[in-house]
Amino acid sequence: MTKLWGGRFTKGTDVLVEEFTSSISFDRRLYREDIAGSIAHARMLAKCGIIEAAEAEAIIAGLQDILAAIEAGDFTFETALEDIHMNIEKRLTERIGPVGGKLHTARSRNDQVALDTHLYLRKELAAIGGLLCDLQAAVLETAARHGDVIMPGYTHLQRAQPILFSHHLMAYFAMLARDFARLRGVWERTDLMPLGAGALAGTTFPIDRQMVADELKFGGLYDNSIDAVSDRDYILEFLAFAAILMVHLSRLSEEIILWCSAEFKFVELDDAHCTGSSIMPQKKNPDVSELVRGKSGRVIGHLMALLTTMKGLPLAYNKDMQEDKEGLFDTIDTLKFSLTVYAALVAAMKVNAPRMLDAAGEDFANATDMADYLVKKGLPFRQAHEVAGRSVRYCLERGKKLTDLSLAEFREFSPMFDADILAAIKVETCVTARDSYGGTSPAQVGGAIARGREALGGQLALLDTYRRKVI
Amino acid sequence: MTKLWGGRFTKGTDVLVEEFTSSISFDRRLYREDIAGSIAHARMLAKCGIIEAAEAEAIIAGLQDILAAIEAGDFTFETALEDIHMNIEKRLTERIGPVGGKLHTARSRNDQVALDTHLYLRKELAAIGGLLCDLQAAVLETAARHGDVIMPGYTHLQRAQPILFSHHLMAYFAMLARDFARLRGVWERTDLMPLGAGALAGTTFPIDRQMVADELKFGGLYDNSIDAVSDRDYILEFLAFAAILMVHLSRLSEEIILWCSAEFKFVELDDAHCTGSSIMPQKKNPDVSELVRGKSGRVIGHLMALLTTMKGLPLAYNKDMQEDKEGLFDTIDTLKFSLTVYAALVAAMKVNAPRMLDAAGEDFANATDMADYLVKKGLPFRQAHEVAGRSVRYCLERGKKLTDLSLAEFREFSPMFDADILAAIKVETCVTARDSYGGTSPAQVGGAIARGREALGGQLALLDTYRRKVI
Amino acid sequence: MTKLWGGRFTKGTDVLVEEFTSSISFDRRLYREDIAGSIAHARMLAKCGIIEAAEAEAIIAGLQDILAAIEAGDFTFETALEDIHMNIEKRLTERIGPVGGKLHTARSRNDQVALDTHLYLRKELAAIGGLLCDLQAAVLETAARHGDVIMPGYTHLQRAQPILFSHHLMAYFAMLARDFARLRGVWERTDLMPLGAGALAGTTFPIDRQMVADELKFGGLYDNSIDAVSDRDYILEFLAFAAILMVHLSRLSEEIILWCSAEFKFVELDDAHCTGSSIMPQKKNPDVSELVRGKSGRVIGHLMALLTTMKGLPLAYNKDMQEDKEGLFDTIDTLKFSLTVYAALVAAMKVNAPRMLDAAGEDFANATDMADYLVKKGLPFRQAHEVAGRSVRYCLERGKKLTDLSLAEFREFSPMFDADILAAIKVETCVTARDSYGGTSPAQVGGAIARGREALGGQLALLDTYRRKVI
Amino acid sequence: MTKLWGGRFTKGTDVLVEEFTSSISFDRRLYREDIAGSIAHARMLAKCGIIEAAEAEAIIAGLQDILAAIEAGDFTFETALEDIHMNIEKRLTERIGPVGGKLHTARSRNDQVALDTHLYLRKELAAIGGLLCDLQAAVLETAARHGDVIMPGYTHLQRAQPILFSHHLMAYFAMLARDFARLRGVWERTDLMPLGAGALAGTTFPIDRQMVADELKFGGLYDNSIDAVSDRDYILEFLAFAAILMVHLSRLSEEIILWCSAEFKFVELDDAHCTGSSIMPQKKNPDVSELVRGKSGRVIGHLMALLTTMKGLPLAYNKDMQEDKEGLFDTIDTLKFSLTVYAALVAAMKVNAPRMLDAAGEDFANATDMADYLVKKGLPFRQAHEVAGRSVRYCLERGKKLTDLSLAEFREFSPMFDADILAAIKVETCVTARDSYGGTSPAQVGGAIARGREALGGQLALLDTYRRKVI
Repeated sequence: MTKLWGGRFTKGTDVLVEEFTSSISFDRRLYREDIAGSIAHARMLAKCGIIEAAEAEAIIAGLQDILAAIEAGDFTFETALEDIHMNIEKRLTERIGPVGGKLHTARSRNDQVALDTHLYLRKELAAIGGLLCDLQAAVLETAARHGDVIMPGYTHLQRAQPILFSHHLMAYFAMLARDFARLRGVWERTDLMPLGAGALAGTTFPIDRQMVADELKFGGLYDNSIDAVSDRDYILEFLAFAAILMVHLSRLSEEIILWCSAEFKFVELDDAHCTGSSIMPQKKNPDVSELVRGKSGRVIGHLMALLTTMKGLPLAYNKDMQEDKEGLFDTIDTLKFSLTVYAALVAAMKVNAPRMLDAAGEDFANATDMADYLVKKGLPFRQAHEVAGRSVRYCLERGKKLTDLSLAEFREFSPMFDADILAAIKVETCVTARDSYGGTSPAQVGGAIARGREALGGQLALLDTYRRKVI
Repeated sequence: MTKLWGGRFTKGTDVLVEEFTSSISFDRRLYREDIAGSIAHARMLAKCGIIEAAEAEAIIAGLQDILAAIEAGDFTFETALEDIHMNIEKRLTERIGPVGGKLHTARSRNDQVALDTHLYLRKELAAIGGLLCDLQAAVLETAARHGDVIMPGYTHLQRAQPILFSHHLMAYFAMLARDFARLRGVWERTDLMPLGAGALAGTTFPIDRQMVADELKFGGLYDNSIDAVSDRDYILEFLAFAAILMVHLSRLSEEIILWCSAEFKFVELDDAHCTGSSIMPQKKNPDVSELVRGKSGRVIGHLMALLTTMKGLPLAYNKDMQEDKEGLFDTIDTLKFSLTVYAALVAAMKVNAPRMLDAAGEDFANATDMADYLVKKGLPFRQAHEVAGRSVRYCLERGKKLTDLSLAEFREFSPMFDADILAAIKVETCVTARDSYGGTSPAQVGGAIARGREALGGQLALLDTYRRKVI
Repeated sequence: MTKLWGGRFTKGTDVLVEEFTSSISFDRRLYREDIAGSIAHARMLAKCGIIEAAEAEAIIAGLQDILAAIEAGDFTFETALEDIHMNIEKRLTERIGPVGGKLHTARSRNDQVALDTHLYLRKELAAIGGLLCDLQAAVLETAARHGDVIMPGYTHLQRAQPILFSHHLMAYFAMLARDFARLRGVWERTDLMPLGAGALAGTTFPIDRQMVADELKFGGLYDNSIDAVSDRDYILEFLAFAAILMVHLSRLSEEIILWCSAEFKFVELDDAHCTGSSIMPQKKNPDVSELVRGKSGRVIGHLMALLTTMKGLPLAYNKDMQEDKEGLFDTIDTLKFSLTVYAALVAAMKVNAPRMLDAAGEDFANATDMADYLVKKGLPFRQAHEVAGRSVRYCLERGKKLTDLSLAEFREFSPMFDADILAAIKVETCVTARDSYGGTSPAQVGGAIARGREALGGQLALLDTYRRKVI
Repeated sequence: MTKLWGGRFTKGTDVLVEEFTSSISFDRRLYREDIAGSIAHARMLAKCGIIEAAEAEAIIAGLQDILAAIEAGDFTFETALEDIHMNIEKRLTERIGPVGGKLHTARSRNDQVALDTHLYLRKELAAIGGLLCDLQAAVLETAARHGDVIMPGYTHLQRAQPILFSHHLMAYFAMLARDFARLRGVWERTDLMPLGAGALAGTTFPIDRQMVADELKFGGLYDNSIDAVSDRDYILEFLAFAAILMVHLSRLSEEIILWCSAEFKFVELDDAHCTGSSIMPQKKNPDVSELVRGKSGRVIGHLMALLTTMKGLPLAYNKDMQEDKEGLFDTIDTLKFSLTVYAALVAAMKVNAPRMLDAAGEDFANATDMADYLVKKGLPFRQAHEVAGRSVRYCLERGKKLTDLSLAEFREFSPMFDADILAAIKVETCVTARDSYGGTSPAQVGGAIARGREALGGQLALLDTYRRKVI
């Protein structure tokens, strides 16, 4: 097939090379953005007198026909035409004649693909932001629903101190809130209009870039034409945002997998969110959590891939940069899937409160409170720690819990103990007493939930402004 | 050596394990932040009545002595004491007696190390932000100094269109400006105070976290105690920022290496920024640029390392997270070095303007302008492109440039050509005519430089507010 | 749809979860291996008396029908059936009745998917090995064809010493030969039979694993059933092999891109291996090389993805491990494409020998030879280096080459120079004189090419044994 | 300080650039290899008549003095001298006069540093191989010591089937054995001699590379001089080997961390291998395992770093490649530490056999055996699976185990059940019955241990040959 750029060549492209270098198999996903961008461009060309108004109308009508054809599944993409841009331009000229060839005036595929990708990512950021809010809401409401459930808090996967399950969940709310804040940064650096950069140097035509930006509701223009076509930061930044978000989900997944184990039994997932085994009839596996944990690798891999691809590339556009899209698309799909299933999974999981409480009461999770008790009586913390440590060893050797000790036994370790020690190291006391700002006491967690609901409201309001800009 | 946490243990730590798990060899770098944090903590404990005012004074005086000792090189760090926190606490108690053991009241190493790292990174962000501005200034002033130098712009490393060298440099200015914008995001998420989270659940003492935050000039508090000790996002986000910045420097490095080659000869670096060969007497190698390009791998590797380390970790603190520091420190050092040497290198490099201009005039970099010429006479761009493509092939077969063609020859390709075609495809015209916003015309680049200077002023003003918060 | 494992469940799987956890969209690629494995398994079950011979025959016939149906495009894969294994088993039972349910006796999907992947990778390793040899042959024959072409050798992208172009190409031959050696290691660790591991612990049926291994021509058995289902090393090792190979191709690509630039002009690619620009009529871009360079990022990303996914997984199978396939498949496709196009591209590229020779003669690439000359007259090398260095500076200041100097001028730098110095620093002498083993002299390169041809013969013979094992 | 290569320069190096480009802070680690290589080189130069025998003697004596000085801590490394090579050469000339300047005849730092690194890595490979064998031995003997301990086997972290603890451990033996096999590949590609490549093209002196290889006990020579100085595959391959090994250790670590939790309580680590908490007196944390798990990220990061650094580098040497060393050294240290502590930790950990057995008997880990029972009576497996699945659901709803069911209840699910069903689903039967090759039966595991001991003997014999080659 004759290439639209073939004038200078004496020989056609090798078929394998065509297939290798073609991007139509994946960049067809940008058809909507490509057409929207072309329509805005055509409108601007006419307004600036670069093409006739009637020409613009013909072009726009032709593009709208093509959009309808694609959405109706009535459009054949051709590998030999390389990419979404050439597929559409070729078809346009077939439909409306040589005037179709005027559409590419004052632009290049370099700035065109940048425009399409910015538009596309902007749309997906709005969608991902919404799903992120959904998951935050599911986490927050699950926390609210189980506001008083006590579980052991862990460090080093050893029971550390009793905490509220709701407090634990709200830690994830905080992480996801930071993810949302990072998404704002990605949005700001995506919401810039590159068209008009041409191949790399701008154009000799008297275009109006601001008009195109306004048509497409962009917040700003790229300031330097070479940068506009060479920049893939916004994708890198998105991938970094996604990688960190997936690390958060991998941590939540790890915990849910632990909690579903026979050893922990802290939660049970809904049957609808689990699968079984082809061989072992008893199995009910937390596949969703495992997959999300596993998919963190995939997203991190995409980030690494693009960083490596971009490393050491001279300006301006190089074909290497075509490699930006598949990882981006797959990351978007992975995030959307993961956020969606997780919101449902968290909302539906059953919490085994008695089991959690039992676990919190075993294994000396109250030893810090025993030390704190002594500190409040005047012992330096470091010595109080030592007393509590020896008491734990004493109990371990005798198979006892701290709450099993008699006052006499307590006083063996320190004469400062009084009868109120037992109340001070009750699991419930341990939780309630941690009432410092951000701590696990019911009052603190209640406050955090209230603040969380408000913050979520703010996020949703911002998202509305994003959604209104989506083309 | 007896551990400060040894009460519960019946046996000492294996020496190899001690060495393996100890972090003092690298976290000693945090000594200043650790002491500043402890002083703020002690002051707060006294104000809240948790310790006596006199005790706080003794502790603070002791800590100030230790600070002086460390800075005088008169402090022995011990591996058996594990980390900077225990090294200092142990010494404090040796100096001021058991009251030193009160310092650790209402805190844990988990929130302490988080505090230290936040303080440290905040300090380094201010420094890195400054160096980033220095490099932007060097790039901008070099662009301004060579405002009218014409060079070939490249895509696919093929000469594409003539551009101003200053325009090319300003593309890097734009990239670095985005890096600065990302640094702001890192700052915002670093400028949060974690102390008071205790081990993970908050504390039973009536502390005042806001007071500590105010003492240490933090912009806010961590809202959830578990999150406060489990969060390493701010480091991940910093590493992602650093990786993208290093990718930018790797691209600039690639270009400088190309430009220094005998084939390009576009610039010559100062002797002070090059090194020679042990065997080849003629060599003058652009080592700095090569190293910076190479070091992008190192920083990307650190990002990869921490993402992998954090993946799948359950809450709250796990020892794995100790691995966050060496990569962070090395990334900070690498950035500071790279930004500093690059600012000097760019400012000092000699630009070979005649060679650049010659290169811009060869090899058909003006073919787009030939097509644009026809478009302005009414030919659809796609056909104009075809005409220009055939003209190029004609010239290639005859060893000619487009500007060598006679009007008759031009008209062989299209009757639309007139005598003004030669003026239209002169290199200088090609540059001047790309006067669309963000394009390469002298007017556009002049405007961009002016806007850049102003933006830099804004960055510096913001940095001042950062610097005032550094402890 | 009722799940084959549904007995224990009270509720169906959520549709979104089904889609999220299903692998049929990508593991259908394994259909051939899945069926071959099942046939071998059925045959073994019958031979060991676990099922009846007639049952095995029915099963095998049913599987062969399914194979035919799939290859005829006459098979509908269903997402709800999760994966290739369940899709085939369900269809088998529909065709041949409940006896189809006997096929899964004494195995699990865990060992089944391991078997399929081993078989599949083994097949692709043989194919990739062949393409690697093709590229080596193309490199070697291109070297042989241009045996006497002299070019500048580079270090730091500065001209260093004159070399033969064929010597340069043979460096890539050496790299690719190491890749082939690494592929052998991957093969050895892929050529192991996992079936019989069951879910993780082996099986209670009296199976004969060796018989299955023999049927499928495996070199050995997995020795531990838990390892057999948990191991993804062979994929990791393949991805590492692929990443290193892609780094080699990225280096070759970088050079070809440089050589195609107007500044170097060392080679010209065939029109069939290049593409043009949508806007710039003169452009002929080395897209293939740029894409291959870019795709090194993609493959490195896949390696990072799987390393991260596998990190920290407890034994035995976890659903995370389903993430092993898409990166594997994409890496295989990328390698096959890259190797194939590169073999054609290298063979077809035109070498601009005069330009290379000119470049080798400029810029003091002979300065080492000048120093060596003095060493041979007795001067310590370090002093000879200094003399040559000063001579270069003298020439630089006067715009001369070393060969432009008069004997008198030479003697200014050292009285040891005689009239034979000019012959000693001629480009051709520089090349011919480097006759140490592995050096760039025509004799050495000729020997290397001969050895290379022989080594390639050995590789091809080994590949034949691989190909005979492919199912 | 005047540079040894300074003849061509008119100006000294910037101090910051000196510091930035210098490698002496880390490559001093290669001093022993650098001197050994220089001695072999000097000896060869003399034997080939390139320098006088007496000169070689003076050089060698001087180098031996320097070696002694370095080992006595009596040598000052200088940053301005850039690297280990120049530091030693400069000192040599200071000691023995200008004849020291003859040492660098016929070589370059490019091939010299390659030689040093090959020698160094070869030494460390022998050491790492030994530590790997030690860990394998510890794993194997721990398995042998607990040969009959039954634990639940897991998939998806759900109890799957009862297995022997020894079988589980032997899965790690198998992984480590593959690591050893991969180490052999690294050794083969490291055991090649690069010296004589010179800067990149070989040398004009009549050297004898084989003699140097023999002196230094290398298995072969690099065949192409450009490849010899450009190749970093052996480091990449080592890092990939290390990354996979660390993934194995991360999996073992994850399991040990789980097993040490209060919920699992399967093992208890020795106090010597754990640490406590600064705040929580009861804590005994598996820090070693957490750190090793965390350090997998570090090693994967180093692999990523070097792949990225090498990506897209043109031949031959570029300064970027100096970045190969720190990651290599750190990876070596990390591996050696991790393997050493793990061998001790595994050998010393206490196994809680009763707890493991209890866990294996709960939660339906015998459901597969129930299905197998029916299959052996003639029911197709898929139906038997369904029967067992329904039985599990029945038990779950009533809080029973399968072994709690009466025969009548069994027969509700299938009339094929007889009284022997209870024996068939006893935990011990489940283990013993999995007697297929590689399965978990005591007989199979016993055989595997015996084969393991033998394989280890073979590994150690091979290591002996490696150790004899270490310089």
